[in-house]
Amino acid sequence: MSLTNLSQAKVFEGWHKQYQHRSDVLSCDMRFAIYLPPEASSTNPVPVLYWLSGLTCTDENFMQKAAAFQKAAELGIAIVAPDTSPRGEGVPDDAEGAYDFGLGAGFYLNATQEPWKQHYQMYSYIVDELPQLIEAHFPVNKQKAISGHSMGGHGALTIGMKNQDQYTSISAFSPICHPMTVPWGQKAFRHYLGEDKSTWEQYDAVELMKALPVKTPILVDQGEADNFLNDQLKPETLQAVAEAKQLDVQIRLHPGYDHSYFFIQSFISEHLAFHAQFLKA
Amino acid sequence: MSLTNLSQAKVFEGWHKQYQHRSDVLSCDMRFAIYLPPEASSTNPVPVLYWLSGLTCTDENFMQKAAAFQKAAELGIAIVAPDTSPRGEGVPDDAEGAYDFGLGAGFYLNATQEPWKQHYQMYSYIVDELPQLIEAHFPVNKQKAISGHSMGGHGALTIGMKNQDQYTSISAFSPICHPMTVPWGQKAFRHYLGEDKSTWEQYDAVELMKALPVKTPILVDQGEADNFLNDQLKPETLQAVAEAKQLDVQIRLHPGYDHSYFFIQSFISEHLAFHAQFLKA
Repeated sequence: MSLTNLSQAKVFEGWHKQYQHRSDVLSCDMRFAIYLPPEASSTNPVPVLYWLSGLTCTDENFMQKAAAFQKAAELGIAIVAPDTSPRGEGVPDDAEGAYDFGLGAGFYLNATQEPWKQHYQMYSYIVDELPQLIEAHFPVNKQKAISGHSMGGHGALTIGMKNQDQYTSISAFSPICHPMTVPWGQKAFRHYLGEDKSTWEQYDAVELMKALPVKTPILVDQGEADNFLNDQLKPETLQAVAEAKQLDVQIRLHPGYDHSYFFIQSFISEHLAFHAQFLKA
Repeated sequence: MSLTNLSQAKVFEGWHKQYQHRSDVLSCDMRFAIYLPPEASSTNPVPVLYWLSGLTCTDENFMQKAAAFQKAAELGIAIVAPDTSPRGEGVPDDAEGAYDFGLGAGFYLNATQEPWKQHYQMYSYIVDELPQLIEAHFPVNKQKAISGHSMGGHGALTIGMKNQDQYTSISAFSPICHPMTVPWGQKAFRHYLGEDKSTWEQYDAVELMKALPVKTPILVDQGEADNFLNDQLKPETLQAVAEAKQLDVQIRLHPGYDHSYFFIQSFISEHLAFHAQFLKA
């Protein structure tokens, strides 16, 4: 597993770096970005927060716009931001190039349908291949947390709940909470997974929270002025399960905030502090 | 002077907003962005930091990438980010569309040469028209500071030193310190100002610092791993004048940092705190 370094920049005494590598799981070249806090070294490996971005994003959006590095440097947490789908020639896209399916919209699942299944295996990439790569090449330990935004919030919740031995804590900004009931999720699941809705439940945070014993602490932030709140995100569906099962889930609604990175930057330090409690425990 | 609101997003309990307006000085429509901290109100007008961006930027780069809002909210300082040149149909550009001249490269001066002089009047726009517009439409007081990056660092230094009654304090990241001696500056000055180099001195921070009684406190941050350091920026030329004249100028060199917004975000809070001392005094 070799890596090609594409860029590096010092930031808050740590380093932001972008890499390209061949992904066996996705059968294509992939790019990711990592922030290494100043204290990270081979003799002092640090924990990692995996950040999953939303529709249309690459590894760059969070790293450029989330204003996360000051707090990550202070807490000694690395951040890894993968891309949001397989990429490159030969990777199929939405027939009409829509933003909400195909390239930039991998939905963090393993596709089972043609022509998607050869490349669209983002679930395995995030859960298995990428952490192995990170742990082989960077001064990090095996402590991992997971977070994300919108489609990536869906990814963080579902991956985190299905792999509770792997992630100490889960958080999300504006997640698609119940994708099998909303347009973004239904379009993606129908194409990637087919018509059998029992397979959809494996990638639906509300259904997983109902079905699984959830012990992992979860923090969700949602802006009340988010244009997608009622039609696509539906945090009340997650809240209902969390309350019924009396889980350690905090869902915070923030008046006036929208779906943008301006919202994320306003609360990312609190998410990092939330994860630090468990990563460093 | 009417304004059209283009966007708004809540961030750190304050508001980021973009506006379009007709500029009489520039003879075109212009866009700018403003961050209003939460405490700003008609009964509590706040001071303003004007931020001048570098080559190729618009009003968006700083606002999305500089991570300035947490500190601005805490200190109660508004930030205004104008565009970097006149824009629109009929505004002439570099003949070959180069990034370092014409659109996105107004150099914060008043052009005297054809075909530039009709629109390229960024000096007057920043010094006069824009503050009048801001003070007429937003809950700000008349206290102003100025800062910027690269070409915008040149703008902040030159505008700040030529208008010391207007700005309490000046700061810059990676400024073009002595533009009349470097390729970026020479190309711009030759086209916008003509061949008479005595006119160039009016927009050259080193020459202005030599010629003027400079009382305004100045802070400059420069990354030592900046690709443009030796050929375009030359902070040592400014340092020499500041030392010879024993001025209140701090020039800090930062090992490992480059020319990007990752550098700016690492130190922007210190710039805001620097300006706050004088804006709030």
